[in-house]
Amino acid sequence: MSGARPADGLEALKERLLAGDTRALARAISLVEGGGDAGRQVAQLTFTHAGSALVLGVTGVPGAGKSTLVDGLATLYRKAGERVGVVAVDPSSAFSGGAILGDRIRMQHHTSDPGVFIRSMATRQHLGGLAEATPAVVDLIDAAGHRRILIETVGVGQDEIEVIEMAHTVAVALVPGLGDDVQAIKAGILEIADVFVINKSDREGADRLQKELESLRGMVERPEGEWVPPIVRTVATTGEGIEELRAAIEQHAEDPRSQPRRQERLRQAWARRLRGLLDEGLWSRLLEAMPLSREMDGLVAEIAARRRDPFSVAEAILRRVRLKAGK
Amino acid sequence: MSGARPADGLEALKERLLAGDTRALARAISLVEGGGDAGRQVAQLTFTHAGSALVLGVTGVPGAGKSTLVDGLATLYRKAGERVGVVAVDPSSAFSGGAILGDRIRMQHHTSDPGVFIRSMATRQHLGGLAEATPAVVDLIDAAGHRRILIETVGVGQDEIEVIEMAHTVAVALVPGLGDDVQAIKAGILEIADVFVINKSDREGADRLQKELESLRGMVERPEGEWVPPIVRTVATTGEGIEELRAAIEQHAEDPRSQPRRQERLRQAWARRLRGLLDEGLWSRLLEAMPLSREMDGLVAEIAARRRDPFSVAEAILRRVRLKAGK
Repeated sequence: MSGARPADGLEALKERLLAGDTRALARAISLVEGGGDAGRQVAQLTFTHAGSALVLGVTGVPGAGKSTLVDGLATLYRKAGERVGVVAVDPSSAFSGGAILGDRIRMQHHTSDPGVFIRSMATRQHLGGLAEATPAVVDLIDAAGHRRILIETVGVGQDEIEVIEMAHTVAVALVPGLGDDVQAIKAGILEIADVFVINKSDREGADRLQKELESLRGMVERPEGEWVPPIVRTVATTGEGIEELRAAIEQHAEDPRSQPRRQERLRQAWARRLRGLLDEGLWSRLLEAMPLSREMDGLVAEIAARRRDPFSVAEAILRRVRLKAGK
Repeated sequence: MSGARPADGLEALKERLLAGDTRALARAISLVEGGGDAGRQVAQLTFTHAGSALVLGVTGVPGAGKSTLVDGLATLYRKAGERVGVVAVDPSSAFSGGAILGDRIRMQHHTSDPGVFIRSMATRQHLGGLAEATPAVVDLIDAAGHRRILIETVGVGQDEIEVIEMAHTVAVALVPGLGDDVQAIKAGILEIADVFVINKSDREGADRLQKELESLRGMVERPEGEWVPPIVRTVATTGEGIEELRAAIEQHAEDPRSQPRRQERLRQAWARRLRGLLDEGLWSRLLEAMPLSREMDGLVAEIAARRRDPFSVAEAILRRVRLKAGK
């Protein structure tokens, strides 16, 4: 990490980023992903300049054609003259060192267009790394002047859910005929969806899936007058329904009925993020105060061998800690 | 939470649990899932009594028939006279308050058999809740004398990956003809798999999937002489190949070639768990030392409105903290 980069260099980087310079944006993102001091400073310097973009999360089951949907939406936004950012999140690929996904190839016709900024997030440097880094990366793209940002996730795990909680609108993509597990998946994503998409809706089973979704949607308790997620049918490969999807997304983002839930989701996401930063800070303080790094290996080995339990080990460490707070 | 339950009551609960009493086990699990003091004490009391079971993680893509595979394995283990535990992990269903999965129905013919203990984990009470609670639940089932424990996950997200890192052997189930996203998924789960399963292998595309897996498997760098994940073909609904799967799993668990990677995976998992406990402890200390609970709402609102950045807010709080360590 080039964490020693002087702060005035970062100020200059910030100015170039705010002016919309793509190379400055890419550099800033690399710093943020690196997780070091410089990355944090960049995120900090630009934070209050973000918040203007409409951030859309696109999630759903594997095989639902999420990349093609995102591609279609990006194309529509470009036609409307908007600068677009695309962030593809794939925590699982951290295990293969950040694989280049075959799906990303579909976005390649945008690479010659400076109005579209595309970034894949697949690194897992530290605990909570992706859930922390992705919102910061979205903020940077936002601060650089992209007014529509699409976050695409590969799965629907906890990590991805935390990531898209930062989105203004979450579109959940399903596909007809996925088999037995679709019930379980639908149960999991029911409450996060602002808009449902039935992609590949020319396939057999689209009507049945629509009926199932309508029925499941009816089972969610909502305060009177709150936004009810519409169900949009698309065939992303031909572009069918993408304009309707765009309209549904924009409507959700602007509709006052969607605001209470959205505000609460954001509040929780920020509370969690702040807690994460405080955890990290306290941990650094602990490492400064005691030679824990050296002890950890031995303690972990004791636990793995079942000679000591992790609770007693943690307690024994914490008993040595004195924590006081001033004004 | 009945956190005030006296410690001698918990001692008695522990003794009954170690004797294999199913009701004591169910009660202990509820306490652990509750996340309170009593839960922690139960986990602590039983920790060094666990570690004898063979823990198997079964993960993979939606629609791969994981529940049916787990059911088949459980049946085989029962025939061999082993007591079996099954833990089904579905973090996403936390959003719908812990839906009862349709798939679980398949396990119902085991419910009259006291030698099979089945538990679904779908709660998300706090940050890292599931990743923390699941290993503790597995330990309890282990301490109660179940010698084969199957952990089944619904997805392949970060949370599930952390959960199955605790397993001795991880079987990854795939299925022919899942479409475009299968490349991306395979990239993500390549390095976590100890055994690959091609389920529904009577479907078209099984040979192609096998070739793809063989090719992908060859791309992973492994130290000389380390375990190479076999590929087992099954048709779980008819029982075809389940015996071969069981044999492959048992072989992996015993094979010395699989030990280095397994040890490292466990070491990392325990280090993360210990770090999580220390984070929690420090956070409690912080809340004791300053009236942060009252301040948090206002600070989070400032951040959400982009008036202040979360880094400065965290720094300002941490500046007020003095942390010292004794011997």
